[in-house]
Amino acid sequence: MTAEPVDKTRYDKPCATDFIIASRQCEIDDLSHLMRMGQLVAVISNLIHALQRERGASNVHLGSGGERFAAQLDDLRAASDELAQEFYAALNEVASRTIGVQSGARLFSRIAHAVHVLEGLEPLRARIRALDLAPDEAVRQYSAMVGGLLAVVFEAADAAMDPTISRLLVAMFNFMQGKELAGQERALGAAGFAQGEFDAAHAERLSDLIDGQERCFDIFVEFADAESQALWCTALGGTDQAEVERLRRLACTGNLSALLRSEGASAHIADHWFLLMTARIDAMKEVEDHLEDQLQALCTERLEQARSRLAEQASRIGALQQDDATDATEEAELPEDSGSFVVFCGAERYSSESVSPRLGRAIIEMVHDQSQRLQSMQDELNAAREALEERKVVERAKALLMKHRKLQEDDAHRLLRKMAMNQGKRLIDVARAVVSMADVLG
Amino acid sequence: MTAEPVDKTRYDKPCATDFIIASRQCEIDDLSHLMRMGQLVAVISNLIHALQRERGASNVHLGSGGERFAAQLDDLRAASDELAQEFYAALNEVASRTIGVQSGARLFSRIAHAVHVLEGLEPLRARIRALDLAPDEAVRQYSAMVGGLLAVVFEAADAAMDPTISRLLVAMFNFMQGKELAGQERALGAAGFAQGEFDAAHAERLSDLIDGQERCFDIFVEFADAESQALWCTALGGTDQAEVERLRRLACTGNLSALLRSEGASAHIADHWFLLMTARIDAMKEVEDHLEDQLQALCTERLEQARSRLAEQASRIGALQQDDATDATEEAELPEDSGSFVVFCGAERYSSESVSPRLGRAIIEMVHDQSQRLQSMQDELNAAREALEERKVVERAKALLMKHRKLQEDDAHRLLRKMAMNQGKRLIDVARAVVSMADVLG
Repeated sequence: MTAEPVDKTRYDKPCATDFIIASRQCEIDDLSHLMRMGQLVAVISNLIHALQRERGASNVHLGSGGERFAAQLDDLRAASDELAQEFYAALNEVASRTIGVQSGARLFSRIAHAVHVLEGLEPLRARIRALDLAPDEAVRQYSAMVGGLLAVVFEAADAAMDPTISRLLVAMFNFMQGKELAGQERALGAAGFAQGEFDAAHAERLSDLIDGQERCFDIFVEFADAESQALWCTALGGTDQAEVERLRRLACTGNLSALLRSEGASAHIADHWFLLMTARIDAMKEVEDHLEDQLQALCTERLEQARSRLAEQASRIGALQQDDATDATEEAELPEDSGSFVVFCGAERYSSESVSPRLGRAIIEMVHDQSQRLQSMQDELNAAREALEERKVVERAKALLMKHRKLQEDDAHRLLRKMAMNQGKRLIDVARAVVSMADVLG
Repeated sequence: MTAEPVDKTRYDKPCATDFIIASRQCEIDDLSHLMRMGQLVAVISNLIHALQRERGASNVHLGSGGERFAAQLDDLRAASDELAQEFYAALNEVASRTIGVQSGARLFSRIAHAVHVLEGLEPLRARIRALDLAPDEAVRQYSAMVGGLLAVVFEAADAAMDPTISRLLVAMFNFMQGKELAGQERALGAAGFAQGEFDAAHAERLSDLIDGQERCFDIFVEFADAESQALWCTALGGTDQAEVERLRRLACTGNLSALLRSEGASAHIADHWFLLMTARIDAMKEVEDHLEDQLQALCTERLEQARSRLAEQASRIGALQQDDATDATEEAELPEDSGSFVVFCGAERYSSESVSPRLGRAIIEMVHDQSQRLQSMQDELNAAREALEERKVVERAKALLMKHRKLQEDDAHRLLRKMAMNQGKRLIDVARAVVSMADVLG
């Protein structure tokens, strides 16, 4: 009751500068989160790589009726387990520090799914050991695990607010997706060559996997920087692409008799295919590692920039407020009729009761800077986001087709592609049409 | 070093259920944030309403050369100041609880801008008191303040993750925008009638404001629920719309001589216009208040739902884990060769070492539920977002035109509309074309 109302008013009234600082601080929080997500993505990438190799070798094993790769499989499983441990450790770290982040609900839902499907790894291995599983089903189960992990990466890519980082994440996500299709191709081919035959369905599936890889790598090339693109060319150049294409052709045409005649037992050819494709996929992993290093470097750089900008602005504001206090004292000594109550500065007027013209100008400049920067980031971001948006629409359309027409994922994708071809439209346009009919479909 | 490695592994390995809970918790955090934003929006809406009225009365005052509304203005200013205090108090609340939220950087940047432009209120009033300002310039400065406040509301609307809430926010934001254009119309008309004339530029501006209102209210109707739409009809029905239209027509045709002859002094007509438009805008405020109440009710309901879902799932998981522990003990008593190592359940297999089939099924169900729900929310959300997206594109296009052609905001908007008319395209399409040329423009 004895408090001065004027003082209370001045206390309650927030200063624009506080919110400029808060805005910067939010950016720093976003970047720190992204950095942690980058570390999680690197760990996931390693785990996926190990699971892909385990899947491929498992299919040689299953395809050869248990003759091949029994010993190697134990090593590959141990390697996967070690990387799974790293993944779990990274999740504990993420869980403890990621409450309240952007799109946290979706991220954690994806993680829950990924963790859950990974529970199926031991039972799956037991059935492979017992040769109690068709190669296709083994591929399906391993691929579901990889798919669950990739969905976590996708969520991370979707959360980035910085356009350069977002472009990098789009490039990285599509690269990982392409590599996964290459991994499925290795596994499918491994079983086929080991069994000595590819039926029409398997040949078609192989073609789909090859096409799908190309689409993914096209998007990667579109969004990656020149250095990563060059590395991708070099990495592929170090593999025997002609031999890959020859075996692909023989597999896709479905007739392996000539190959078996000239090059001996199917087990030998399966080993050859596995090693060839593994070299190819290992080369991809090099590019992926490079992308992850780039992501870390970019986040570190952005964080440093954001922190030094924040420090700079905070000290600038502090200095101006200091001056301001001095100016106000000086002005208070002027006669009342000096007209100094309202001080003109540029396009705006300030009361000498509130802030000085200099601080006022600095505030305008900082607010303008920050909103311009956020705006132009948004513009660039939208371009990168479109690539992710398209994937979401295609995934959504597939899910709808799976539900309404009781299709497997592969078949849903094939149906979409067929619709696109028949209608002479792009896949994404057909997918959009399917999604927009979702209400009608029920 | 003496720790058992198996135990360590089990400790490190996170459970899918933890992440389901974390996902739910993030949703609750999002909703709590939205609820606080809703409270902030309500406070902003009141402040805007007071500033709009102060702006209109100031223009009667300025237009009448200081004859009219001098006393009323003091009351209106006191009312604005009181609501500004409430706004500042709400900001202090937001600032202390909003670190780390979604799009926090943009939100705080908008708030910094709004707080900053409000600093200009006292100097502006001083010039109005001194009659040292053209009515147009007074409108421009008041409108900049309202615009800064509306930008904060827009950011709040953009952050909602729940589609029903998002639709409501889109309806509310467009309604507030429409009401602001009605407020500008009141102020412009007040000055014109008080001065006894509308030149061609002012008549055109008045037409623009009327068109703009209609576009905003169209979007409101599209996104609002039936109850709010009905309230909007009732509220408008309680005002003298025919008289509003008559005065608009006379103002837009630019010739007031007949009106002045038949209805007396221009000061009288200005008062009449001011009261008429104030009744109209007060009616709008009722609808706005209703929308805000709805937002609070919806957030409260969603929060309760989310909290009870979380509690339900947590207790379900707890119960299943209890059972699980019991089951595991029981299973350990089975002979080793009982084949119970791998337990088939539905489409998935579980190791009895990890989780029981029942818990496994529950996890699948919960993960599936959560991701389905998040996905369908995303789908609906995209529809609501489009309306916001369009505004962003138009704003961005205007900003580009203002920068590159050195235009005022009004003129930039008019240029966009002219381009759209000439090309026979929608405003949004022309705006998109302008934005996509941004790189070319420099």
